[in-house]
Amino acid sequence: MSFREDGHAAVDWVFDYLERVGELPVLAQVEPGDVRRSLPESPPERAESFADVLRDLDDLLLPGITHWQHPRFFAYFATTASEPGILAELLAAALNAVAFIWRTSPASTELEAVTLDWLAQLLGLPSGWHGHIEDTASTSTIAALAAARETTGGRVVVCSEQAHSSVDKAARLLGLELRKTPVDDALRLQPEALDLSDAAAVVATVGTTSTAAVDPVPAIADACEAAGVWLHVDAAYAGSAWVCPELRDSQAGVERADSLVVNPHKWLFVPMDCSAFWSRRPEALRQAFSLVPEYLRTSDEAESLSDYGPALGRRFRSLKLWAVLRCFGREGLQARIREHVRLAELFEGWVCDADGWELGAPRGFSLVCFRRDAPDEANEALLERVNRTGEVFLSHTKLEGRYVLRLAIGNARTTEADVRRVWEILQREAREV
Amino acid sequence: MSFREDGHAAVDWVFDYLERVGELPVLAQVEPGDVRRSLPESPPERAESFADVLRDLDDLLLPGITHWQHPRFFAYFATTASEPGILAELLAAALNAVAFIWRTSPASTELEAVTLDWLAQLLGLPSGWHGHIEDTASTSTIAALAAARETTGGRVVVCSEQAHSSVDKAARLLGLELRKTPVDDALRLQPEALDLSDAAAVVATVGTTSTAAVDPVPAIADACEAAGVWLHVDAAYAGSAWVCPELRDSQAGVERADSLVVNPHKWLFVPMDCSAFWSRRPEALRQAFSLVPEYLRTSDEAESLSDYGPALGRRFRSLKLWAVLRCFGREGLQARIREHVRLAELFEGWVCDADGWELGAPRGFSLVCFRRDAPDEANEALLERVNRTGEVFLSHTKLEGRYVLRLAIGNARTTEADVRRVWEILQREAREV
Repeated sequence: MSFREDGHAAVDWVFDYLERVGELPVLAQVEPGDVRRSLPESPPERAESFADVLRDLDDLLLPGITHWQHPRFFAYFATTASEPGILAELLAAALNAVAFIWRTSPASTELEAVTLDWLAQLLGLPSGWHGHIEDTASTSTIAALAAARETTGGRVVVCSEQAHSSVDKAARLLGLELRKTPVDDALRLQPEALDLSDAAAVVATVGTTSTAAVDPVPAIADACEAAGVWLHVDAAYAGSAWVCPELRDSQAGVERADSLVVNPHKWLFVPMDCSAFWSRRPEALRQAFSLVPEYLRTSDEAESLSDYGPALGRRFRSLKLWAVLRCFGREGLQARIREHVRLAELFEGWVCDADGWELGAPRGFSLVCFRRDAPDEANEALLERVNRTGEVFLSHTKLEGRYVLRLAIGNARTTEADVRRVWEILQREAREV
Repeated sequence: MSFREDGHAAVDWVFDYLERVGELPVLAQVEPGDVRRSLPESPPERAESFADVLRDLDDLLLPGITHWQHPRFFAYFATTASEPGILAELLAAALNAVAFIWRTSPASTELEAVTLDWLAQLLGLPSGWHGHIEDTASTSTIAALAAARETTGGRVVVCSEQAHSSVDKAARLLGLELRKTPVDDALRLQPEALDLSDAAAVVATVGTTSTAAVDPVPAIADACEAAGVWLHVDAAYAGSAWVCPELRDSQAGVERADSLVVNPHKWLFVPMDCSAFWSRRPEALRQAFSLVPEYLRTSDEAESLSDYGPALGRRFRSLKLWAVLRCFGREGLQARIREHVRLAELFEGWVCDADGWELGAPRGFSLVCFRRDAPDEANEALLERVNRTGEVFLSHTKLEGRYVLRLAIGNARTTEADVRRVWEILQREAREV
């Protein structure tokens, strides 16, 4: 069998998988070590066929895969690798372009700039910002904070208690101190509590991980401007919602940010990894990251995107973003985002109307935080039971010390029937706890 | 047309591309801005078909692509995205597993450990090292230096003048001082010149970027052990050669390293990105990077690989490494590495035997540095002419201030005829300079 035939078999595997993924247990039902024990301890001496790999993917790996593509994956932030994005990853792998400087991949470098401009237009961001793609928001945050440190000379990063753990991790990596600001009742950073002494940057979050709360960016921007502090906005999840004009209240003040991250691999149907990073101060990023050794020096007067972040080697990530933006179009993206928010509203309504259930926080975008009106242990046991069914997968957080369940909607395959199903299962299992 | 049919069309595009890539101009023949100007300024309102994307890939992007898959790509370090690796990327994109903790992708987490163990066996590394995958060696170096800083409390990173620029970049990011040690005539770090005062780490290179020189790791390890300094070995390119026992002289002392990076996406037929990172002190990495917020806390007693590096979100990169190791087998990997080294030896012989040509440095593995016995300007003009033909692509470096051409062999499609061809072109163009 030729690799071309293997390729066609792989495509059929992919589309068969996407058709049947809803019937698989969404959360892997294995114990730690099960997958490892099923695999040989040593690599083969002689070549095996790709058909063997595909067979073992089914037999050995699939039971150990938590299906992020499942329509009833409601944990963390639900994501989708859409078909055009998947196929673009195939093409990108075949081209294997490594875009560390312009001439090693002009098309990848320029398509990255073009797609980030397109995305800025779709989201209603200011024109003229410099955009590039990092792998994850963790790296985007590192890039922002490194530029802030370089520009301001400050030694402290300020964020709310509800900011993502990657801010802690980035600060630690960069040797910066982290100062956490209290939040209000709606879990938003309290701007009047901001202490910006010796600060390099404030990270404001639009759509926090626990509850999708929106920090008051305009007031934070005022404080940053007055103190000469870099404002980085983390809209990794919720920024995708801005494709719908009616969801742009949460964008107020973002136009004053020094840098912004939105992850199309979260809620914009692009496969991992694709973290969109914009800055209106690209020279600060270059100052932090540009470094051109002799063997990469060329006479081209073209920008190299490795000057804007930590990594030198860069995959052709813009190809999948381009494919998704084109194959969905503005209308297609809007329709799905609106549907996800509608489904979250529906679920929120059921929780509010049901005896013995309560919201844990106000619904944010397509994320609902809720709980049984019962002790934490009961809620924890409920989540454990519900996830063990294999039919649905939800996650949790703690809010003011209380255990809260999270239902995140964001998979393109999720329908109203799926949301009804998770509510049925929750009610059924709650009776058993 | 369904996406499944699009998928089959994409696979045919990929295999047609791999068949014809040798006929395309290897270095993109466009000027900065050409690709950008050929693309619409705004994204589409309505969905377009994937067939349109595929058509524009051919018509608009391909002229702007530098073909890393071309058999006469001899620049930087030549790479290969092999067929099993490409197809595995398709599968990984379809699964879209995000392995930030064990339960979000048990199979990805455990396969990563298994494939890194397999690879350690293939390369003859000590057993028991902890392995995980980062995107690039830049990130692997960041991880190593962060762990070194955490463990030793030192504030200085020491490397040779020939170490890769990513060491400078990582040190800057981490707020560490960089101290460069002189090299000997063969461009290897001089261990007697090491100054380890206040040092956190030494980065020793096995296979430097300019000339594939091998630092004297045993002597460096002695110095590091005596001073309590972390030893990180950067074998990003040359480490793959260790799959052949006869090329393991360069491995001496590596068993004493605290951490090691080898990039299978360089010379082991895996598509970008796949940087293999091992450490015999995994607890130091966890100390530097582990941080588990409430929303990621689980009762699983299983390790999460995001505790070992900067990023939280992790792609299913082990799938392509697994596919490549299986579809090549130890023998297949060895055969190709040996052939590349043989071709480099052949070319080296031609340079040595020809009038008016000279080696710029001793051949290292599959890399030959050479030049015309002529002023730098003539060598620079020669490279420019040769690359402009579109038939071949070479890069350059500077050694002791002199301009030197680099021929790097590493593409699986490269044959002896390709190497003969580049030598013919070099000789022809040299007569014209």
